[in-house]
Amino acid sequence: MPTVAVIGGGQLARMMQAPATALGVTLRPLVEAADGAAGRASVGSVVGLPTERDALVALGSDLDVVTFEHEHIPPELFAHFADRVPTRPGPAALRCARDKLAMRQALQELGVPCPRWRQLATAAELTEFLAQQGGQAVVKTARGGYDGKGVRVVEAADQVADWLAAPARHGGLLVEEKVDFERELAALVARRPSGQVVAWPVVETRQRAGVCDVVIAPAPELAPTAAAAATAIAEQIAGALDVTGVLAVEMFETADGRLLVNELAMRPHNSGHWTINGAATSQFEQHLRAVLDLPLGPPTPTSPVTVMVNVLGAAVDPATLLGEVFAAYPQAHVELYGKAVRPGRKLGHVNVCGPQVAQALAAARGAADILMGKEPR
Amino acid sequence: MPTVAVIGGGQLARMMQAPATALGVTLRPLVEAADGAAGRASVGSVVGLPTERDALVALGSDLDVVTFEHEHIPPELFAHFADRVPTRPGPAALRCARDKLAMRQALQELGVPCPRWRQLATAAELTEFLAQQGGQAVVKTARGGYDGKGVRVVEAADQVADWLAAPARHGGLLVEEKVDFERELAALVARRPSGQVVAWPVVETRQRAGVCDVVIAPAPELAPTAAAAATAIAEQIAGALDVTGVLAVEMFETADGRLLVNELAMRPHNSGHWTINGAATSQFEQHLRAVLDLPLGPPTPTSPVTVMVNVLGAAVDPATLLGEVFAAYPQAHVELYGKAVRPGRKLGHVNVCGPQVAQALAAARGAADILMGKEPR
Repeated sequence: MPTVAVIGGGQLARMMQAPATALGVTLRPLVEAADGAAGRASVGSVVGLPTERDALVALGSDLDVVTFEHEHIPPELFAHFADRVPTRPGPAALRCARDKLAMRQALQELGVPCPRWRQLATAAELTEFLAQQGGQAVVKTARGGYDGKGVRVVEAADQVADWLAAPARHGGLLVEEKVDFERELAALVARRPSGQVVAWPVVETRQRAGVCDVVIAPAPELAPTAAAAATAIAEQIAGALDVTGVLAVEMFETADGRLLVNELAMRPHNSGHWTINGAATSQFEQHLRAVLDLPLGPPTPTSPVTVMVNVLGAAVDPATLLGEVFAAYPQAHVELYGKAVRPGRKLGHVNVCGPQVAQALAAARGAADILMGKEPR
Repeated sequence: MPTVAVIGGGQLARMMQAPATALGVTLRPLVEAADGAAGRASVGSVVGLPTERDALVALGSDLDVVTFEHEHIPPELFAHFADRVPTRPGPAALRCARDKLAMRQALQELGVPCPRWRQLATAAELTEFLAQQGGQAVVKTARGGYDGKGVRVVEAADQVADWLAAPARHGGLLVEEKVDFERELAALVARRPSGQVVAWPVVETRQRAGVCDVVIAPAPELAPTAAAAATAIAEQIAGALDVTGVLAVEMFETADGRLLVNELAMRPHNSGHWTINGAATSQFEQHLRAVLDLPLGPPTPTSPVTVMVNVLGAAVDPATLLGEVFAAYPQAHVELYGKAVRPGRKLGHVNVCGPQVAQALAAARGAADILMGKEPR
């Protein structure tokens, strides 16, 4: 039986468990807590941190591969496994997902279209960049950001005075052009060590307060040339950076039809949750197949449209609202993450498949609202 | 969080785990062994037998409902839970799935079409029945049968002399007309305590040596009137016997278009595994929704055709053959049960969705053959 260790105990590791069980693959997530999202779902969970040697030893010596549900991997982990067990993706690829300076540098060298950017060390540099960009820009910490954290839209250097006081604490800083985009897209691909790459249809993503809110698959009214270009960018990055497993490339689409890469994630990604119910192969099964170097499955959609809406924490455990949500939306595919309820926390998502965007979006939104304890809009 | 105990540790309990995790439902299977099919997949497993009071106590006092993955439930279990926790289906319904004499009696009272049958106590009765039926008939033990066990086609009473020596040991015996059928069908429905019933499309099932081999969904070229009649029979049985959860009704279709009920199962069933990949709601999610009295999901197919082929044990662990199977059939949905390999044992199944029966059947058969370690046919 193949055995896969996965570093991290959140919803992404949790959602790998169902396809692992189906394939007869033993999943061994390294989780922060036994009662976290993955700990509650995986018999094979090991409690510990990737910085702890004992925890890495407890993952066992019978592993076929080590993979990740987040990018924040300490060097000790790679040193521990070194030549004994492959880590997929490997440290060089993963650095470009963990470190936004490394990512921008690598993409620039590949000629991949990105927003204008520069590394940032001083307030003077930021003031100069702001002047060039019409007075507004986006400052990012190179490391540690997620879900809108580590990102600030600024108009003056004093808005990031805290970061500029100690850039090294954040792995460095960078400033980027604030792109005047029409919408955001995501291209999701999977790549095996042997080189095979498959691409799901490009999706539209909508954020709220920096957190993914809605995903529409495929992206409505996306020109075929733009879809092909977005997919080609993701495939190019996967190959050039030697990514193994799932790669998500978040992009801006501008009014004049340009695509600019915003972020990379080298793991299953929120923009791919629709594939659980809407594609012939889900991103979670595909990630396992890719890191085990098994032939990949077809990424074909199984429905004309799939819409995903995130369930963000309110005051109530959404698992107590299943009766209400299914009474109103029996067709909703509800996925809950087993996490303690906290305001704003990602507690689950809803997928709705259907022939048309408007109805699927209304149903997915309605179902998510019920699970968030909101009054109907 | 709703909590569901499920009695039994085989593949049916195992396959309830993925939808339980997705819905945020805590599943607590009572399993024979921690390293069995369900034990390996469910964090909440309790090791023990349903005849053991300690095991039933270990399931906890916080259960919302108790359900089953097989029908062989001892009276001690119902007595233990009695009025404290609902058991779904209940003991009266389940008796008709466990006891073939009770089942025939109940169906006869409902006027449901069945093969000719009678209870059997003596060799003389069997000889008389054989004479009436042209010399051939099917003798069944009332209890304990599955996958062809407890069923014999006979032409003379001495072929069941062992059973006739002590009929009570098998809960009694019955003899049935050997139906000259064209094919076998199965109608799968789910019913909530509040009465809601949904029906998946009627499927064709093919057995080999008494064990399910292939399921084709929907049943090819089934007349709409026959499909409606088969569904109506299953709905009638579900309602009249107060079944809660999934009910599978296996039927014979005769050359002259009659439908005769062969067997009942009150749980997810091998004839419904296609729903995992081929229907908007799988039988495993639906069973959980039904026993929790949640509104049921749509049973709509998501593909024109889905074919399932069982993987029966050969000499090799099928999990070691994933590379070969996905190289030949990347589109195959492989589900393995994590069971120790034994010849003839159900170790998994393959679903293939597609536009046409012939191609889907060829691919599912080819994939299952690889997983069984067979040479290509």
